[in-house]
Amino acid sequence: MASPEPLTVRSGRVRHARRLATRAFRDKTGEFLAEGPQAVREALGVPGLVLEVFATVEAGERHVALRERAATGSTPWSVVDDEVLAEVADSTTPQGLVARCTSVVAGLDAVPPAARLVVVCADMRDPGNAGAVIRCADAAGADAVVLAGDSVDPTNPKAVRASAGSLFHLPVVVHRDLGEVVELLQGRGLQVLAADGRGDVGLFEETLDLAAPTAWLMGNEAHGLAEAARGLADQVVAVPIHGRAESLNLATAAAVCLYASARDQRAAGGGLPGAQPGDSRPSA
Amino acid sequence: MASPEPLTVRSGRVRHARRLATRAFRDKTGEFLAEGPQAVREALGVPGLVLEVFATVEAGERHVALRERAATGSTPWSVVDDEVLAEVADSTTPQGLVARCTSVVAGLDAVPPAARLVVVCADMRDPGNAGAVIRCADAAGADAVVLAGDSVDPTNPKAVRASAGSLFHLPVVVHRDLGEVVELLQGRGLQVLAADGRGDVGLFEETLDLAAPTAWLMGNEAHGLAEAARGLADQVVAVPIHGRAESLNLATAAAVCLYASARDQRAAGGGLPGAQPGDSRPSA
Repeated sequence: MASPEPLTVRSGRVRHARRLATRAFRDKTGEFLAEGPQAVREALGVPGLVLEVFATVEAGERHVALRERAATGSTPWSVVDDEVLAEVADSTTPQGLVARCTSVVAGLDAVPPAARLVVVCADMRDPGNAGAVIRCADAAGADAVVLAGDSVDPTNPKAVRASAGSLFHLPVVVHRDLGEVVELLQGRGLQVLAADGRGDVGLFEETLDLAAPTAWLMGNEAHGLAEAARGLADQVVAVPIHGRAESLNLATAAAVCLYASARDQRAAGGGLPGAQPGDSRPSA
Repeated sequence: MASPEPLTVRSGRVRHARRLATRAFRDKTGEFLAEGPQAVREALGVPGLVLEVFATVEAGERHVALRERAATGSTPWSVVDDEVLAEVADSTTPQGLVARCTSVVAGLDAVPPAARLVVVCADMRDPGNAGAVIRCADAAGADAVVLAGDSVDPTNPKAVRASAGSLFHLPVVVHRDLGEVVELLQGRGLQVLAADGRGDVGLFEETLDLAAPTAWLMGNEAHGLAEAARGLADQVVAVPIHGRAESLNLATAAAVCLYASARDQRAAGGGLPGAQPGDSRPSA
């Protein structure tokens, strides 16, 4: 193969990558960017996902294992200078590495049939929150994250960054119609619990069966859940505020809810490998 | 009182306020800034805390209750233009309001004698995390937050903002010597649990007595807890990672730990009003 011309900020591939900063172009191309060593490593771990890696000379020398992994998968490794990397990257600190990827966003059918713990975000607007929720859902062992309604694109560069690699670990679904999402999950036997400060029941009240298969419905950062969305849920649950804080950050509330479910599901044995969802399914 | 000269970016008081962006000047003066309507409202709720409010004409018209509260407490209300407000504020969206406050930072003696839930941050460097931990500690009903070691100043503008008013709700202590902090808390009968991914025991394992009075020790964002810090704790506890996430964000981990304690403490009756810490104290 002839030695290619060095890429410049005016090269077509660089301009293409740069445009992936916008949702419109991501939607049009079905591509997005993963920036920094951690995200690039995780992306390379998914076969066929990475279309091209942009890397500075220094980054290539520092991350030999990544370069070898790209080579093994015949993934193009484009050496660029700092100016080009800065042009491509959204982050100010991509540490010399940006991967152009095919989208990981899935449809509703990507929710595993035996899912026992799912997070549904309705109208979540902040990409940092979306990424944080995906990271935390992964940590808590959730089976999928669904972004419904008018939610941010989970492949937004800030969301990818905040997910700290978890975007590549579990199904992340985008499905606009929240009613259809809830219907599918309820049809699969999951109770749908809306997390909302105005909830009827406290997260740790005994009437709540957190060991049951559960989808947590989280609302908008500023406005919480719309009344229509709350109406779709089986119960509306408040994370208790014991002190004088006005509220919890959305991602924090999601973490508390998800770990409360994970704790009780695992205590009930439902989360152990090989366990089948069975008699602990909700009656609702 | 004669109508004063309008404040400009060159006025002494404006330059003084501007300098509070630096920790050195905050330490020297014992003052800090609270920005935006929520923080200013909370600050005005603490008698004697606010030294002066800088407000645009529009903000004064929009927040009449705040102006009245300032007047009731004889707190100066300085009307400034947008340029001056932008000069004073760290935030890009202070919504026309900045309060100059005397420091809320307390010493170790501010930890309430009957404290049952405390967070200790060791070498926490990120002001957003510090604010998030303070907010979450408030929500979980913690009695105090202690910033130890080489931690960020909790009155850093970003920390104030991230605390969403909670900085004004509970004692926030800065005490450099972590050993002294741990000694005091253990002397008061609190078990000290270090939260660390390399923990010996999982957060939800039955051997752990989360109903007992507890101080949670959280480490640095990048490096976790130093070995010396882990050695001070009674136990090192890992928040379980059920999925493939590498770790949890520090503030998220703190939220999960604090709410796990709050849940069990309250289930045991220890957190109810009037209840006395008693036989549920740890033996350690």
